[in-house]
Amino acid sequence: MKAEILCIGTELLLGNIVNTNAQYLSEQLAAAGVSVYYHTVVGDNPERVKKALEIAYSRADMVITTGGLGPTQDDLSKKTIGEFFNREMVFNQECMNEIEKYFKRINRTMTKNNESQAYFPEGAIILKNSNGTAPGMILEDEGKVCIVLPGPPVEMTLMYENEVVPYLQEKTDEIILSKTLKVMGIGESKVEEMISDIINKQTNPTIAPYAKGAEVHLRITCKTSNKEEALEKIEKMEQEVRAILGDNIYGCDDDTLEGVICKLLEEKGLKIAVAESCTGGMISAKLVNHPGASAVFMEGAVTYSNEAKMNRLNVRKESLDKYGAVSSQVAEEMAKGIAETAKCDIGLSTTGVAGPGGGTPEKPVGLVYLGFYYRGNVFSQEIRLNGDRLKVRDRTTKMILDRLRRALLKDK
Amino acid sequence: MKAEILCIGTELLLGNIVNTNAQYLSEQLAAAGVSVYYHTVVGDNPERVKKALEIAYSRADMVITTGGLGPTQDDLSKKTIGEFFNREMVFNQECMNEIEKYFKRINRTMTKNNESQAYFPEGAIILKNSNGTAPGMILEDEGKVCIVLPGPPVEMTLMYENEVVPYLQEKTDEIILSKTLKVMGIGESKVEEMISDIINKQTNPTIAPYAKGAEVHLRITCKTSNKEEALEKIEKMEQEVRAILGDNIYGCDDDTLEGVICKLLEEKGLKIAVAESCTGGMISAKLVNHPGASAVFMEGAVTYSNEAKMNRLNVRKESLDKYGAVSSQVAEEMAKGIAETAKCDIGLSTTGVAGPGGGTPEKPVGLVYLGFYYRGNVFSQEIRLNGDRLKVRDRTTKMILDRLRRALLKDK
Repeated sequence: MKAEILCIGTELLLGNIVNTNAQYLSEQLAAAGVSVYYHTVVGDNPERVKKALEIAYSRADMVITTGGLGPTQDDLSKKTIGEFFNREMVFNQECMNEIEKYFKRINRTMTKNNESQAYFPEGAIILKNSNGTAPGMILEDEGKVCIVLPGPPVEMTLMYENEVVPYLQEKTDEIILSKTLKVMGIGESKVEEMISDIINKQTNPTIAPYAKGAEVHLRITCKTSNKEEALEKIEKMEQEVRAILGDNIYGCDDDTLEGVICKLLEEKGLKIAVAESCTGGMISAKLVNHPGASAVFMEGAVTYSNEAKMNRLNVRKESLDKYGAVSSQVAEEMAKGIAETAKCDIGLSTTGVAGPGGGTPEKPVGLVYLGFYYRGNVFSQEIRLNGDRLKVRDRTTKMILDRLRRALLKDK
Repeated sequence: MKAEILCIGTELLLGNIVNTNAQYLSEQLAAAGVSVYYHTVVGDNPERVKKALEIAYSRADMVITTGGLGPTQDDLSKKTIGEFFNREMVFNQECMNEIEKYFKRINRTMTKNNESQAYFPEGAIILKNSNGTAPGMILEDEGKVCIVLPGPPVEMTLMYENEVVPYLQEKTDEIILSKTLKVMGIGESKVEEMISDIINKQTNPTIAPYAKGAEVHLRITCKTSNKEEALEKIEKMEQEVRAILGDNIYGCDDDTLEGVICKLLEEKGLKIAVAESCTGGMISAKLVNHPGASAVFMEGAVTYSNEAKMNRLNVRKESLDKYGAVSSQVAEEMAKGIAETAKCDIGLSTTGVAGPGGGTPEKPVGLVYLGFYYRGNVFSQEIRLNGDRLKVRDRTTKMILDRLRRALLKDK
């Protein structure tokens, strides 16, 4: 099957936002064995959208659109696509009820223009939006398929996973299964180098590395008509990769770093607390992302001022005066202080220069100290990071959590 | 002038990378007064690249391509575009010298395949690459212009700024200026309803609303030949919009909610501390995003366990027992507790059921209490949110910060 991605939205043409939707869909479709030869972006203009559809269907059987499903006037996708396929717009009461329920749930008054979201071209398969009001749809017309998804990525990706994937699976008789191994602590080119033998001899399953922020994801994909065979082949390749990458792999598929850590802590009966300066709450927030965090995560202290470091964590004034807030000494005292005051087995801490200001020749922007209190032992690590304020803080968060994960794995 | 962006690269179609080039160029072209109606992405395939060029030139006078300029076999852009315009490839010695110099500078041996980079279609204007080996080019052909840029963003953006901008300035006499007003606390459809008169009568400047997570951005764009006239017209429309939306607008262009809040706090000489349960550090982390946060933000406490709520914030055991951790009483005690223990004028707190588990009929997932301590006054607000764990926490963070912003504005 050949598909094209058609992203609708003037904000894309004006460069207000990056088209992450096209990337997400491309990745998903590639994994599902659907060939994509073109992406197109077009503005909120019915005539141009129709022309783009015409061109797309001259090259492909399936077009997936994103954007233009909201209630406001420049959101015209459904109506325009309906016109393209010569379908009348019909009102869907069930869908209207869902939208009304959504507004009740979030305690807001539904404005009149939201009613337009309950109109669909005749014969459309309606796709539920679990993360917003705008439903999507699928239209089938003489061998052509049009899948219409919302623009906001949080709505689009969930709708794709929940509604489109099952639809596509019915369309093909080939099964494509994939498994993603998630790697932390080494870069993409290093990963590629380490498993180059496996990459070079790949046929089916295939394996492909993707850099994802501080992580590298290795996607193993197998295409067969037999599910068990696919699972077996994937398993075999996974074992080969794991034999080389070892603990650099922190999990797979839906695993998150914070989830893996919380599970390890729970298994070992350990409790954790976090004291943050430069990361300013990001480590705590990341741990709390995991729904079961309350079993192991006791508390976090964002001790941004020196006073807070002293009052909350018993950091010594002499250490602050002598070494400065950004120092291994203070990082260690913070980690010890939070673990002791929160009565936890493990304390983590960060203190650093996140930038853009505040750097000196001795303590430049990007210098961060990670502090660890681990069952009575106190230690720290100096790291130097690149990038803007947010990136320095984000990398620090991921690095300290990865260090903790590795320590937990070694702690038998 | 009408332009199109044509990004060439199979890695884009496979979803290996996000197309930030299209966004960068769109933003630049909009600012330069060049209208862009379409983006296209095509793989490293000469036939498909030629077809994409044909379609693009049926709609636009200028096509800007990115990608496909490197020395490896799948980089075929220059040759393919030369063929499209029926131009012979000719060797350029000057360019070859530059490439040789580049390799000397980075101390690497030049591989043979780099010679291909010194070949250009006859008549091409060569664009220097200050950040890599692959030069770009401009071809002019019977009113059609083709600007060919490299794929790596660090090379592309520098070449655009240094080589393309001067070229374009000679071509156009129109400028486009825009300003974005940022709205919090009301939804996209509500915003549109409120300013529908302005939207309906818009011509130049235009105004368009975009939903951005919990925010709505209103972009006012003016096209003229005179910069002062454009600024004046934008200013006039901004005043009209502000007269209607008032304090719902928190800032414009590069302003962030946290930045606006930190500035208001600094102006009023107020200090703030935050106690978080369900948001788990997100509010602190967001405030710390602002580089000047240390002047006003003293500390944050992520009191995830009941023990931490009691020990750190003096929340009363009776309140936890009687009302539960998710209650207005506990939210208020948390806000008061963090403000008093951190000696701050303002204390914020959150406690809620972020899900997916933990909900009951009385206290369902999405129920959150926001607590406020504001210069001696204590109060709270109950909110009900939709979406997954992360979204509930993210919305809570933005809502409480917006409430704080509004309180600060009213505090004369």
